[in-house]
Amino acid sequence: MNTVAIVGVGLIGGSFALAIRKAGFQGRMIGVSSPSAAKAALDLGVIDEVRSLEEAVAQADLIYLAQPISRILRTIDAIGPHVKPGSLVTDAGSTKRAICSRASKSIHNARFVGAHPMAGKESRGVEHADAELFEDRPYVVCTRDTELEQWIEKIGARLVAMSPASHDRIVALASHLPQMVSTALASVMGDEPRTSEVAGPGALDMTRRSLSSYEIWQDILSTNAEPIEAALEVLMRKLEEIRTSLRSPEMEKEFNRASSNARALRQK
Amino acid sequence: MNTVAIVGVGLIGGSFALAIRKAGFQGRMIGVSSPSAAKAALDLGVIDEVRSLEEAVAQADLIYLAQPISRILRTIDAIGPHVKPGSLVTDAGSTKRAICSRASKSIHNARFVGAHPMAGKESRGVEHADAELFEDRPYVVCTRDTELEQWIEKIGARLVAMSPASHDRIVALASHLPQMVSTALASVMGDEPRTSEVAGPGALDMTRRSLSSYEIWQDILSTNAEPIEAALEVLMRKLEEIRTSLRSPEMEKEFNRASSNARALRQK
Repeated sequence: MNTVAIVGVGLIGGSFALAIRKAGFQGRMIGVSSPSAAKAALDLGVIDEVRSLEEAVAQADLIYLAQPISRILRTIDAIGPHVKPGSLVTDAGSTKRAICSRASKSIHNARFVGAHPMAGKESRGVEHADAELFEDRPYVVCTRDTELEQWIEKIGARLVAMSPASHDRIVALASHLPQMVSTALASVMGDEPRTSEVAGPGALDMTRRSLSSYEIWQDILSTNAEPIEAALEVLMRKLEEIRTSLRSPEMEKEFNRASSNARALRQK
Repeated sequence: MNTVAIVGVGLIGGSFALAIRKAGFQGRMIGVSSPSAAKAALDLGVIDEVRSLEEAVAQADLIYLAQPISRILRTIDAIGPHVKPGSLVTDAGSTKRAICSRASKSIHNARFVGAHPMAGKESRGVEHADAELFEDRPYVVCTRDTELEQWIEKIGARLVAMSPASHDRIVALASHLPQMVSTALASVMGDEPRTSEVAGPGALDMTRRSLSSYEIWQDILSTNAEPIEAALEVLMRKLEEIRTSLRSPEMEKEFNRASSNARALRQK
């Protein structure tokens, strides 16, 4: 692998570039990004050069799509005819069915591996890129590919293999549902002005996600609505069960079940 | 004020003792607690002496009830005939209607001020008592009382005055609802074993509260069920609204409303 193209040199794309460099990649690192992000990435030494999308994908052995989901979908369509034959194309989008399905229609001369590194930071942008961002974090792949898996291992991430449908259903529960619940909680708490006078760490922890910007979530919601709807339905049934048994001995079992699940989530 | 009796010398009772000492209280600090907690509190210098409940409340000018809610209710009944006339009795229970109503029936010779310091730690017990636990934290009082309010100010807490009913309704939203939601989320996530493979900071933040022990929550649920039921109903309506509009432009407004509420919760 001599040439890598990072398409979308932000926090994730920039961190992947830094991480594979640190892990021993010695070839050319091409960036495709907006003029301001490209300049910042060049200045920081995250990439070696800037090219147009078409030039970059024609030269790269590994094409890494790290844009928002809706942009990745458009990029996949655009690069189909131009990718270097035999190259490896992968992405870092947060939902997988829409992206993998689009790639199977548009990319024919290269291997496409839909992927989702479960890593991030509160701050975005290449300025916050970090060679260690993926360390000890799950890295989901939807197709087995030895070359990509070797890099995932080298950058210290934990490989998780899942079909696009499983990924989308499971992250709907583990990631999208908590977001929607945090949004709902913040909304409901704000209807009573005095909550802020007594808000403790619980209220703050549980509403922190609601500070996320809609810009990121719009794409997730539009490409993963059905699994999120299903997850919300399961949660609402559980909340109704809890509401009707607050004073019953059943609640002790519910607390025990929940805390044992929460401990399991914390084990790797 | 010459003598203080701390009834229940755990994290909160012990921290109150340390905090008023630090703020200048120079009198006697009596502890009423289980033999093991009393010994630990004596060894740590948190209290000066140990007495029976009856002896302690007959001597103290300030009686501070820092037990679990159900124990506070029993203590209020037990001390009624024995409190030093003219003394001040206050408590630190997490719900207020049941306690204030019981006190109005049982305590006649002393002023009772139902109160709720919104402070805590993950670790319980007098070993973790901390003179600074209340600093910059809300301290709810259900009756105005100059003497208690002066101590609240001296220990650096933020005074919040609310009726017992307002307190219980507002903490149902700001504290009990987040707990029940965290429990429900952990329960639902655990039904899908692979969630742990992809759980990120969102899943962990949002399920952290579900690790709380039922022991503490049983009393809260049994003395505040109606406001929690009402809060759960409001939240379920909001989740249903969200479920049916995931792909609609309405979601952008929902995200904006929620994040502006979440920011307001973070302002003091």
